[in-house]
Amino acid sequence: MSPIAVPVEGQSMQLPDADYKLANSVKKGQTTSTTNASTQLSPEEELVLKSFRVLIADLCQQFKGGHPGGAMGMAAIGVALWKYVMHYAPHSPDWINRDRFVLSNGHTCLFQYCFLHLTGYKAMTLEQLKSYHSDRTDSLCPGHPEIEHEGIEVTTGPLGQGIANAVGMAMASKHLAAKFNRPGFDIVSDHVWCMVGDACLQEGVGLEAISFAGHMRLGNLTVIYDNNQITCDGPVSLTNTEDINAKMRACGWNVIEIADGCWDVRGIVKALEASRVSDRPTFVNCHTVIGVDTAVAGDAVAHGAALGVDTVMALKRLYGFDPEQRYVIPDTVREFFSGLPSRGQSLVTEWNHMLQEYSQVYPDLAEEYATRISGHLPDSWESLIPHPLPSKPTATRAASGLVFNPLAERLDRFMVGTADLSPSVYMSWKTKEDFEPPSLGTGSYSGRFIHYGVREHAMAAISNGLAAYHPGMFIPVTSSFFMFYLYAAPAVRMGALQHLQVIHAATHDSIGMGEDGPTHQPIELAALYRAMPNLLYIRPGDSEETAGAWIEAIKARHMSSIISTSRHALPQLTGLTKRTEVAKGAYVLEEVVSGTADLTLIGVGAELNLAVRVAAELRSSSHGLKVRTVSFPCQRLFDAQPRAYQRHVLQRQSGVPVVVIEAYAANGWERYAHAAVCMSTKRFGKSLPGPKAYEYFGFDVPSMVARIAGYLDDWKADPDLRHDFVELTCAKTDA
Amino acid sequence: MSPIAVPVEGQSMQLPDADYKLANSVKKGQTTSTTNASTQLSPEEELVLKSFRVLIADLCQQFKGGHPGGAMGMAAIGVALWKYVMHYAPHSPDWINRDRFVLSNGHTCLFQYCFLHLTGYKAMTLEQLKSYHSDRTDSLCPGHPEIEHEGIEVTTGPLGQGIANAVGMAMASKHLAAKFNRPGFDIVSDHVWCMVGDACLQEGVGLEAISFAGHMRLGNLTVIYDNNQITCDGPVSLTNTEDINAKMRACGWNVIEIADGCWDVRGIVKALEASRVSDRPTFVNCHTVIGVDTAVAGDAVAHGAALGVDTVMALKRLYGFDPEQRYVIPDTVREFFSGLPSRGQSLVTEWNHMLQEYSQVYPDLAEEYATRISGHLPDSWESLIPHPLPSKPTATRAASGLVFNPLAERLDRFMVGTADLSPSVYMSWKTKEDFEPPSLGTGSYSGRFIHYGVREHAMAAISNGLAAYHPGMFIPVTSSFFMFYLYAAPAVRMGALQHLQVIHAATHDSIGMGEDGPTHQPIELAALYRAMPNLLYIRPGDSEETAGAWIEAIKARHMSSIISTSRHALPQLTGLTKRTEVAKGAYVLEEVVSGTADLTLIGVGAELNLAVRVAAELRSSSHGLKVRTVSFPCQRLFDAQPRAYQRHVLQRQSGVPVVVIEAYAANGWERYAHAAVCMSTKRFGKSLPGPKAYEYFGFDVPSMVARIAGYLDDWKADPDLRHDFVELTCAKTDA
Repeated sequence: MSPIAVPVEGQSMQLPDADYKLANSVKKGQTTSTTNASTQLSPEEELVLKSFRVLIADLCQQFKGGHPGGAMGMAAIGVALWKYVMHYAPHSPDWINRDRFVLSNGHTCLFQYCFLHLTGYKAMTLEQLKSYHSDRTDSLCPGHPEIEHEGIEVTTGPLGQGIANAVGMAMASKHLAAKFNRPGFDIVSDHVWCMVGDACLQEGVGLEAISFAGHMRLGNLTVIYDNNQITCDGPVSLTNTEDINAKMRACGWNVIEIADGCWDVRGIVKALEASRVSDRPTFVNCHTVIGVDTAVAGDAVAHGAALGVDTVMALKRLYGFDPEQRYVIPDTVREFFSGLPSRGQSLVTEWNHMLQEYSQVYPDLAEEYATRISGHLPDSWESLIPHPLPSKPTATRAASGLVFNPLAERLDRFMVGTADLSPSVYMSWKTKEDFEPPSLGTGSYSGRFIHYGVREHAMAAISNGLAAYHPGMFIPVTSSFFMFYLYAAPAVRMGALQHLQVIHAATHDSIGMGEDGPTHQPIELAALYRAMPNLLYIRPGDSEETAGAWIEAIKARHMSSIISTSRHALPQLTGLTKRTEVAKGAYVLEEVVSGTADLTLIGVGAELNLAVRVAAELRSSSHGLKVRTVSFPCQRLFDAQPRAYQRHVLQRQSGVPVVVIEAYAANGWERYAHAAVCMSTKRFGKSLPGPKAYEYFGFDVPSMVARIAGYLDDWKADPDLRHDFVELTCAKTDA
Repeated sequence: MSPIAVPVEGQSMQLPDADYKLANSVKKGQTTSTTNASTQLSPEEELVLKSFRVLIADLCQQFKGGHPGGAMGMAAIGVALWKYVMHYAPHSPDWINRDRFVLSNGHTCLFQYCFLHLTGYKAMTLEQLKSYHSDRTDSLCPGHPEIEHEGIEVTTGPLGQGIANAVGMAMASKHLAAKFNRPGFDIVSDHVWCMVGDACLQEGVGLEAISFAGHMRLGNLTVIYDNNQITCDGPVSLTNTEDINAKMRACGWNVIEIADGCWDVRGIVKALEASRVSDRPTFVNCHTVIGVDTAVAGDAVAHGAALGVDTVMALKRLYGFDPEQRYVIPDTVREFFSGLPSRGQSLVTEWNHMLQEYSQVYPDLAEEYATRISGHLPDSWESLIPHPLPSKPTATRAASGLVFNPLAERLDRFMVGTADLSPSVYMSWKTKEDFEPPSLGTGSYSGRFIHYGVREHAMAAISNGLAAYHPGMFIPVTSSFFMFYLYAAPAVRMGALQHLQVIHAATHDSIGMGEDGPTHQPIELAALYRAMPNLLYIRPGDSEETAGAWIEAIKARHMSSIISTSRHALPQLTGLTKRTEVAKGAYVLEEVVSGTADLTLIGVGAELNLAVRVAAELRSSSHGLKVRTVSFPCQRLFDAQPRAYQRHVLQRQSGVPVVVIEAYAANGWERYAHAAVCMSTKRFGKSLPGPKAYEYFGFDVPSMVARIAGYLDDWKADPDLRHDFVELTCAKTDA
């Protein structure tokens, strides 16, 4: 086999002494030579690779689970990265200028855990390694890497997310470098390394991110493809026979191919070092063998199950290890990695010196940089939001712009993007500069407005990467129609799961979005986001509440948020709505001052003003009812209030019926209301102009008043009704 | 400009008289010549193109909305398709062997509507065309094409869906051709034509489908790229500078480039005809100008807004039309299309003759074909499901296999696929053949098992295409972990929205899936699917209920379903669970026979057996409570029951507290229960072995018994408690 990195023609870089030999194809059951003279491995390196594989096999075997094969095949890549290429400091794992490593094929997590152990990350003891797949609730070795643990940059697992996160991190670094670096002071110089498997290159989110990264010419990003051509179903060729190198080149990437990725540490190092100085992202196509040197080498069964006792013992014999001993890390291997913590500390010290000098030459920049790292927002940020907001009817999407753009303009930590809906989402501020590669002439890496293209999923996943680069340093903002946050949902979830502050500005959030029709009317989507942990789904009812929504989203430094706004103009409920009250999730808008209320009417978001109008009508002489109104922009915030406050707002305990008005499926409102004027769960929306769509589905005031009045009659007539939840949908459209 | 299709080197096909000239780049504001001698347009064709553009401009202008620019630029493509290339019959729109046309860039729907009108689809009158963006609730011209209307194959709009649907349709045709065609009898010979814009080629789902279609060598698929290089944000080059032709070739597609897509009808026809006989899918890269020949040509403002009165009038003047007249379709244009209905009927007649002869030569095949078309399932299908099922503890994912595989084996209409989780989802039957291009040697187009790769989103969208090919003819089944149906969610939604029967076999559905951890534990996802219209989300509690789940999913011929199953073995609740009761959504498992019940305990899916055990413990001497148990596999089916039945099952009206046990976020259960033993919405799951994960989150019997008993005490002490919904989460993990 060729020991050398193989550049591929086209946009590939030149490696002076490269051997232009194509990768050998991998055959099922194939084992590779254990001497590998041609790869110029040192005896120590060879022992490291073998010990690493045996350790992985042992760790999976103990609880008969896990994903051994991939991690074993990737050993040489790990040695190249952690021993020779990456800049990092095991004893200062949060050093801001460290290279970032993202394991997009997160199921091979033992790969990363074992290298963290070997290279001297203190928390990752051998005992911790043994907790992989164990009952230990304090394990640092979960089934996929988790951001909470030392040395892990980002939580991965759902395939394709990691590569998009890596793109976000590379953008973060490019941006900071453009902003803070000065001649002689490369304060920001970290590189992002991302491992992917076959699957990450099949997932749509990965493909979106690849296309985008190529466009953005992120030379500080290297993706290493563990090309073992095996997934759960068997050979990749069952489902994918594309020319991945050509595809990556078409997307603007450099491509380097490594024929013998299992052993060729030298070749891998050379490729990675070359990629570090490239002006485009680099794809290192590393041919490996899953479960290398075992009876299941090159077979799908090596992917997601322990190898079996016999196979593990055979591997140990092949590699000259005592088959009876487990978790053996030879002294030579320990020594091989022993210098890394001190090398890391030297890097940190050197960088600290540079920063110190930089602080003297550029004191303002240094201070700004320090503030960014601290995550602190200026105390005055809230005062940048206009108060009062214009009193004329305004779509809350437009109000969002009025509220947020002054913040975006002044506070550099906002990186704002859109999935190709700039004219619709109102997130562009006047002085904005686009984040673009300078060579295209349309912006620069200093820009903070990102044209993500029609790639909602990657937009959210990349934003997670921006946020994870150094939590608090950036507050990424995404924007699109609310409906398309279903495309982005897996990444929105990953942001929430990681406690990353990402704010999603979701517009066109009700049937009021109109003519685009049922495919664009998100009637059931709120149910997902209201159930999602660590996420605020906020639907403001007018401009004032939109201010409150942004304030809560910005204050939630360890949560993700969706601010859900209307396409159409909403009247200002001046004197009723209060931005400060949004913090409580729900609050009383209009109270009944004397006597017992007949009804509590909840209004939400774009339908809040309808609730107020319906209440007024029900209070009028023809009905003469005592009606309270409640604005309810955020269930999650309300659930966090003391029970006494919740009861005060809803007053269900007093036997007063509670009806909610929202042009969504009612699911989720049963917790707060007895009945809902809502969309039927029997059907989706309809393409009509917004006002007509509201009317068609019975959200016109007369129709709502009639149905609610009827419900109140039923409530009196049937005492059992309060135990049911009733959907007051419009009968004629219920079919 | 070059008038001719330009094949590109590599895998492109040979066009004998092609002019190898690269496409000119499109410049903002550019207008094209209106004479276009070089394109060999006939005077009639030129008038058709002009009339078509003026009509589009008029239709958008009337209500000052819509998407005119793209449709105008695509006029020549439409003429090539509907006049010269496609096989279809306007007066027999459902003719089974018609070519399928999919408008993946669905916002340009006027393009399709106008051609349906011009070519003689009866329902699509000029009055109907004018209803685009109107208040008319009976409009056939919604903002995106909808499958319910004549001549529309599939509902599109959310970008990238249509191209994946087209792939599914091409697979359907390939499969039917392989199964039913015989020498001299190409009964199935339809071709699938799909229009895409810039965005469909950026969306992940589109990219997944492209890679997959290339692998599957779907020569009966042609994708026509309306390459106008403009999206909402402006030039595509703001976010995408990849070499799309090279990318498509890398994915195994033929590529043909058309330089002057606005006028070159001849070149387009030649390209399309060539693509019809290709052995690979073909990508026709058609360079067009958005809003061609107007003041906003090549500009983003031509995309999503009416052109403005002045611009429309200027266009009419340029084209020699009376600027004061609207909706003019010259007689010449009418005549140009007038022969199409009769040509279509000739195609139908010819095909009918062929079918008649075929019926004589191959009577059995013909009968089978007719049955498939009818959509009828054999009456006996339910009896193919084993009864009883094995009594030993069984994971419901395995039970799913036991139930469904006999059906899949015997009933050819099931096309079953997996997103690379064959070993985990139990959907492979013994005699299955893989659907693969014969040239790869691993299967054939007759195969009915599909390796979708790690492409969950495309899997679901392609399955929609299979189902939409001729509703009822196929029942596509997809499979993956439930968590990854969040990746697939936009396509699952589109299936439900179109009333397409697609069954999603979703495994690993609770925290019991274990070690993979929070990224894979779908605790909030059910809330989405329980709120989604036209979709059954069914969580069976044991093998018997798994049989019931499949029966309901198969009976629901106009809905999509998700059958949500466990990774881990569940005990059989023999004598309690009944497959037939699943139809009601919920049913009483154990009734209190004498006296008033103290508690109704609902169990769901993988947690049903826990509810039964908790109930037994609460009934035991130490507690001595009267406890009813209810199994609740499907909220949607329960909601469809009469209110009397609902009250009978839940008995909330009797003042009996109802508690549900489910290892999900409780959102949605408030409608049926007063309290829930559930996952907290404050956090995601945790990587632990399944049983340990249950225990960690307080789903062990003693802990649940204690919390429920405590709740019942509180219930007695605080009469107000019945008005709150209480989450009985495990306090220690709530942080």
